[in-house]
Amino acid sequence: MKRSERLVDMTKYLMERPHTLISLPFFAKRYDAAKSSISEDLAILKHTLAANQDGILETIAGAAGGVRYIPYLGQGHAEKYLTDLASRIEDPSRILPGNFVYLSDVLSSTQDLRLIGSLIATRYAYSHIDAVMTVETKGIPLAEAVARYLNVPFVTARKRSKVTEGATVSVNYISSSLERVSKMELPTRALAKGSNVLIIDDFMKGGGTITGMEQLVREFEGTVAGITVLCEADFDKEKLVDDYISLVKINQIDAGKSLIVAEPGNFLTRTDFSRF
Amino acid sequence: MKRSERLVDMTKYLMERPHTLISLPFFAKRYDAAKSSISEDLAILKHTLAANQDGILETIAGAAGGVRYIPYLGQGHAEKYLTDLASRIEDPSRILPGNFVYLSDVLSSTQDLRLIGSLIATRYAYSHIDAVMTVETKGIPLAEAVARYLNVPFVTARKRSKVTEGATVSVNYISSSLERVSKMELPTRALAKGSNVLIIDDFMKGGGTITGMEQLVREFEGTVAGITVLCEADFDKEKLVDDYISLVKINQIDAGKSLIVAEPGNFLTRTDFSRF
Repeated sequence: MKRSERLVDMTKYLMERPHTLISLPFFAKRYDAAKSSISEDLAILKHTLAANQDGILETIAGAAGGVRYIPYLGQGHAEKYLTDLASRIEDPSRILPGNFVYLSDVLSSTQDLRLIGSLIATRYAYSHIDAVMTVETKGIPLAEAVARYLNVPFVTARKRSKVTEGATVSVNYISSSLERVSKMELPTRALAKGSNVLIIDDFMKGGGTITGMEQLVREFEGTVAGITVLCEADFDKEKLVDDYISLVKINQIDAGKSLIVAEPGNFLTRTDFSRF
Repeated sequence: MKRSERLVDMTKYLMERPHTLISLPFFAKRYDAAKSSISEDLAILKHTLAANQDGILETIAGAAGGVRYIPYLGQGHAEKYLTDLASRIEDPSRILPGNFVYLSDVLSSTQDLRLIGSLIATRYAYSHIDAVMTVETKGIPLAEAVARYLNVPFVTARKRSKVTEGATVSVNYISSSLERVSKMELPTRALAKGSNVLIIDDFMKGGGTITGMEQLVREFEGTVAGITVLCEADFDKEKLVDDYISLVKINQIDAGKSLIVAEPGNFLTRTDFSRF
């Protein structure tokens, strides 16, 4: 196989398997090529991704070595996308009764999910995440997108028990927007004990739902690697969660004036792009 | 930029934008290269994807022309994956009370979702799908995966009204496994009138839930382009839906004997791989 053909296949192969170590002999065998040729191919791939700031090809030396594709979006891409997203969220037709914000279009756009998933996966690329957790329903596509780029499973806590998931562990939490005690649960076999878990949700007001997921992680003897939400509504009451990252921050919603004000969240300042 | 670098970037760019027409002048400008060089690059890409049976690069001639990347998995890939999936589903520890089957591990594995999404997107590659529809909760990752490879939005019908989605349209349907009348709804702004909709779900017993989604499509004056489920349980009562496709067919579940028997579903016979 020619270099040009190898490069097409290699790019596709690696993109489909993020964060997975692929050995040089594997590629040498796949393409019936010398290891030295494969090394040159990979150097081209690495250099091209780095030049575009939209991916990292990590080389691991030694007998157990190989290459690993790490989904990544550089600071320029992040600023551009989040500025654009915040301005799209400033559309007053998104305001719903109770100062909720309609975001289902963003959460069901596969191109938005690609960028959001890549950004969050950039932030946690080296955090050794074992699983991504969310709670039904609207967090699910977000969690899937992040899990895809980290190439780990995602688990979905449910607010109601279902007969199709077997035994579950449940926790109670204060749902701050509704000011009542709620319950969420996770099937016992969904998450391995001691996992390092990234918590993802679509919208955070008081943070009550997040505290429920933190509790679930503790019940599974795991650790919380991080908490990231698509949107936080900052004008609201004090948060029950301190250490979280938001992609977009909504500063004001005034249904009467048809006004919604948003800006990129703390994601940009809380991500160290320079370490890549 | 050299050909080798262009091929890496082009492969990535096209894979991230399935079913999207990209003009030759766009690439010529992006790489500061002659259109004839770009044409040669694309011929290499097309040829490599075709040789691997894992993607189609469609060329559209003329002034409004360009290329379009169509996610596709050939018959050999489909047979291999579905045979493997069916045998993984034959694990008796998946049997839950009430003859339900634990599938959450498959539905939360991003590598399974990649293959399942690509297969279903292969089947409907030329069906002019406008949107993928599912109902909460477990169908969501499936619908997202399919929508991603078709590059269309997906919409999620909900069984309970939520304050964060605004006005909704609701329908009633007979939930056959529970033998009662249930309700599902979709936000009015989630789906454009007259859309051609692909209905996706994780598990079909009687098919009642699917009839609910068919009704929703009609309420939005749309057409049902197809119905595809990950698993059908064939041993169960007569189906309320005739024309559907399943990836895996479960023929027998016997909790007492710890037995579950599965095989690839009618997907393989109902997909015309030869037209690609």
